[in-house]
Amino acid sequence: MINPNYRLLVISTSTIHGSGYLEYIREEILDFLQTNELLFVPFARPSGITHDEYTQSVKNALNPFGINVTGLHSYENKKEAILNAKAIFIGGGNTFLLLKTLYELGLIDTIKEVVANEIPYMGSSAGSNLTGLTIGTTNDMPIVYPPSFDALQFLPFNLNPHYLDPDPNSTHKGETRETRINEFHKFNTQTVIGLREGSWLRVENSVIELKGNLTARIFKPNQIPVEIVAGILNEEIYK
Amino acid sequence: MINPNYRLLVISTSTIHGSGYLEYIREEILDFLQTNELLFVPFARPSGITHDEYTQSVKNALNPFGINVTGLHSYENKKEAILNAKAIFIGGGNTFLLLKTLYELGLIDTIKEVVANEIPYMGSSAGSNLTGLTIGTTNDMPIVYPPSFDALQFLPFNLNPHYLDPDPNSTHKGETRETRINEFHKFNTQTVIGLREGSWLRVENSVIELKGNLTARIFKPNQIPVEIVAGILNEEIYK
Repeated sequence: MINPNYRLLVISTSTIHGSGYLEYIREEILDFLQTNELLFVPFARPSGITHDEYTQSVKNALNPFGINVTGLHSYENKKEAILNAKAIFIGGGNTFLLLKTLYELGLIDTIKEVVANEIPYMGSSAGSNLTGLTIGTTNDMPIVYPPSFDALQFLPFNLNPHYLDPDPNSTHKGETRETRINEFHKFNTQTVIGLREGSWLRVENSVIELKGNLTARIFKPNQIPVEIVAGILNEEIYK
Repeated sequence: MINPNYRLLVISTSTIHGSGYLEYIREEILDFLQTNELLFVPFARPSGITHDEYTQSVKNALNPFGINVTGLHSYENKKEAILNAKAIFIGGGNTFLLLKTLYELGLIDTIKEVVANEIPYMGSSAGSNLTGLTIGTTNDMPIVYPPSFDALQFLPFNLNPHYLDPDPNSTHKGETRETRINEFHKFNTQTVIGLREGSWLRVENSVIELKGNLTARIFKPNQIPVEIVAGILNEEIYK
């Protein structure tokens, strides 16, 4: 059973086509946080932008709605900053860089500790990968070498954010997303949830709810993938 | 300078659209090998197929043209098999799995040794990634955790096989290939050569030649990428 203290918002993408950063999911975020203080973790550095730049984009998106955002990089004592956080948001970017940075700073166990103490955790993309067992189903390029692929392990499965269906017209011979996840299942047993852009999971009271307008794709070893519609996930789906 | 003993065929993809396995590049392979004995390394296991299945597909492609193919997995003493090889082909699949397997079997240094002794090395896709400095620019999913991202390092740069141009009509928010390589260059200094499907590098006498009908894309830190046409690569291009 998922720890009943966990409060998680596991977002496939921060931005959908034709909409600003976090705009499409803003109402859900405001409803989820239940605090106006947000500690942002900018370590995934999308496109290599700086921690300050990345934090500023979150401030721009959420300050107008009464949320005070601070960047974890700006604290000298980062463990203390996490222990004092009212809510945590780990943004997207490169999952390898994100996980390596958290391990190097010794913050993995600290984040686990506060989330087990009911601090809301919001992740998008790379930050959502981290809520699963490992980063073994990230789409990112391995630009740096983390000391482990083990993630925060709040959820008993793996995530594939930005899940993308195969393009029936493609002549490209690189692997499709589904082929990659099938390869993953030759060497790993956990369920993988492919979350399309515009979908997210909300986890509270040991219940996982798929939200957004799209279905999600569920992969298990040696089984044909299935599509699930938005709503509460039966434990059989992800076990 | 590239070791003058190296003889390398660095292929972006084994298969192009509308053509059989290795078919489009068969003449080049036969010309390159200069032997009829080929040791095939099936460890990258595309789509998770078995070593036997994978080796059979190489036999099917090359036996009719007089090449005897044996799979490295079938030798009890794999180091000895490599030391006795007349030519080596490392096929595509999952780069993480391939590199992890070679490290675990202790074969990295053995392969380096024979290639430094003029044994021809042919790689496609994941097998081509391995000719560069690291696997940090693979497109693959990190389905297993290798003990290092360091590759065979025959070439003083990194490869990105199956290089794919951004789709101007895409509404998907996942990173483009170019964005990913730019992220790589925030943390790594080596040149990255994006090899499109249907392109390959042939390396002999310290000379690198880009072959096939397409241009290749050259990425360096803090520089606008450039396209190079087929032909001999000036050292300035990849240094």
